[in-house]
Amino acid sequence: MSGADLEKLIQLLAKLPGLGPRSARRAALTLLKKREQLMTPLGEAIQAAAASVQDCSVCGNLDTVDPCAVCNDKARDSHTICVVEDVGDLWALERSGAFRGRYHVLGGTLSALDGISPDDLRIASLVRRAHDDGVREIILATSATVEGQATAHYVTDRLASTGVAVSRLGHGVPIGGELDYLDDGTLTAALKSRKTL
Amino acid sequence: MSGADLEKLIQLLAKLPGLGPRSARRAALTLLKKREQLMTPLGEAIQAAAASVQDCSVCGNLDTVDPCAVCNDKARDSHTICVVEDVGDLWALERSGAFRGRYHVLGGTLSALDGISPDDLRIASLVRRAHDDGVREIILATSATVEGQATAHYVTDRLASTGVAVSRLGHGVPIGGELDYLDDGTLTAALKSRKTL
Repeated sequence: MSGADLEKLIQLLAKLPGLGPRSARRAALTLLKKREQLMTPLGEAIQAAAASVQDCSVCGNLDTVDPCAVCNDKARDSHTICVVEDVGDLWALERSGAFRGRYHVLGGTLSALDGISPDDLRIASLVRRAHDDGVREIILATSATVEGQATAHYVTDRLASTGVAVSRLGHGVPIGGELDYLDDGTLTAALKSRKTL
Repeated sequence: MSGADLEKLIQLLAKLPGLGPRSARRAALTLLKKREQLMTPLGEAIQAAAASVQDCSVCGNLDTVDPCAVCNDKARDSHTICVVEDVGDLWALERSGAFRGRYHVLGGTLSALDGISPDDLRIASLVRRAHDDGVREIILATSATVEGQATAHYVTDRLASTGVAVSRLGHGVPIGGELDYLDDGTLTAALKSRKTL
């Protein structure tokens, strides 16, 4: 492999999640083979997105407008705020189409190990939003991990004084999931949350 | 997910080998989170490489100079040319450090199905290079696939009139390979190419 430009490109591509050194080389080769159709458009798209995409000042979503399209959408239910860890989680919920309210992106989870304190997350702005007249329910959709649950507990405490109803996502058997492959924690949660038929 | 710039970026990232729609979204999120350290440098590296990296007019390698660094390197053995399908194969051989001669990149394999004829590959220029005084041996390092072997046969025929010695890579058990996991073809080849100790 040769050419400083080429090596720099491969090194940067290897930093993307899902690409290692080997697949970054393959990606660089593909780019150089498809210069007109892929390489030039991708370079332009990266620079266009870097210039135009910004954090929504209300909810923390990424969009080219501020407030973002979700916050701006008058047709959405403004009484309910769904709190997620990350923009990727917001996108996943949007793809499901199951939620038509507003979002609030914390920007991570509390973590003593990584030195992430409440001040590093969008918690103060969530409490401010909870004081708004219209908000009636806040759904905590953090991950079902230790960090996600600890963050949810902390956020619940902070929201206690606002008087807004706080809920969390239901735990149980994922749709399509086979019991044999589920961990003990999920099975215990599924048993506890059983429904009468 | 929202913002036309963002969706375009994700669509283009999903065209890279190794990235699907889901990992392209993750990659776009990572880029937007690491704007200074990753996103801007990557955009610049893509555009710099698109502008500076070109095919070597001698061997077909990709480099910022023409002829490429391998063809320009006076310390390398100019009597031997290793013929590979793709620039990625050239890089793999270079990483191994096992070959110190010159290369010739065909740019693919013959394929009736994909409509790739000898004129679409760098075969004519290989025959011209074989007529050069210095060249004594041409090593065919095409893949051990049907297409790779068919291409090697065709190239051998075309090189017959030049009088240059033509060889191919040895077949056998890969280093670290367990017999139990090898296919019949490899075992047959390994038996045929056995060496007395």
